[in-house]
Amino acid sequence: MTLLVRPAQARDDDAIWGIIGPTIRAGETYALPRDMSRTDALSYWKSPDHEVFVAERVGEGVSAVLGTYYMRANQQGGGSHVANCGYMTAQEASGQGVARTMCAHSLEHARARGFRAMQFNFVVGSNERAIALWQSFGFAIVGRLAEAFEHPRLGLVDAVVMHRML
Amino acid sequence: MTLLVRPAQARDDDAIWGIIGPTIRAGETYALPRDMSRTDALSYWKSPDHEVFVAERVGEGVSAVLGTYYMRANQQGGGSHVANCGYMTAQEASGQGVARTMCAHSLEHARARGFRAMQFNFVVGSNERAIALWQSFGFAIVGRLAEAFEHPRLGLVDAVVMHRML
Repeated sequence: MTLLVRPAQARDDDAIWGIIGPTIRAGETYALPRDMSRTDALSYWKSPDHEVFVAERVGEGVSAVLGTYYMRANQQGGGSHVANCGYMTAQEASGQGVARTMCAHSLEHARARGFRAMQFNFVVGSNERAIALWQSFGFAIVGRLAEAFEHPRLGLVDAVVMHRML
Repeated sequence: MTLLVRPAQARDDDAIWGIIGPTIRAGETYALPRDMSRTDALSYWKSPDHEVFVAERVGEGVSAVLGTYYMRANQQGGGSHVANCGYMTAQEASGQGVARTMCAHSLEHARARGFRAMQFNFVVGSNERAIALWQSFGFAIVGRLAEAFEHPRLGLVDAVVMHRML
């Protein structure tokens, strides 16, 4: 079985919604409205300025989309040399290295596109697994936003800004 | 002469463009495309999720819009209790306290709207006057983004993230 990362196609909408829907509904890792509709969620994830990829497990005659990420310029104009990404993994594929594979792909792709750095603007502080994963890829915490996120179970938690040069 | 801060009206478009146009063209303080059209610039400044104000000097039978700012929630969902603002002052009114008046107004307005903190995501590091002004209002530098901004004269400079509770 191989995990292939490829550009998302229109036919992936159901699979993408199957991943981002539960993540948005849970409301624990992304600052998005928990009741966001499928249409609004897909419009956001597939915004005109987002380049969207899916991670698909292929082999043995079956395939399944297990993750998706977007890439965009984090700022316009004088800030457009810094990339920003958002990654989501299917709940049933958690812990299988899907996010790791997508992050590795995104760093290569960002370099290929000419970005010179990558920044995550809002990593929820209680999402320790994600923070550890980004750190393993060389991202550093360069900012801490006190009580910036209302976690549905934990209440107000910090968010962090993470960054690395490419 | 009094500096009045009030919600922007459609009739303020020319005045707003007269302020944000030169600032965008200069490209030294905002991460926006320097060649942004008037239409795109006004669409950005007056985005549906932006609440826009103007600072108008009134008295002696004349009035002039000398500054404008927007307020929005910096994030959606679990991050929607943190406000974000952008402020621009007319070049000819620089140093007259327009930004200070707008910032004071925005802090009051953000409290009235129920925001619990305010964050500036991308203050260009070479914009020392702005940083000092925000610090005088209690904002702290909570993050530093290395070489995040390509300044047209200075080359790559840092940007900082600034934050204060309300």
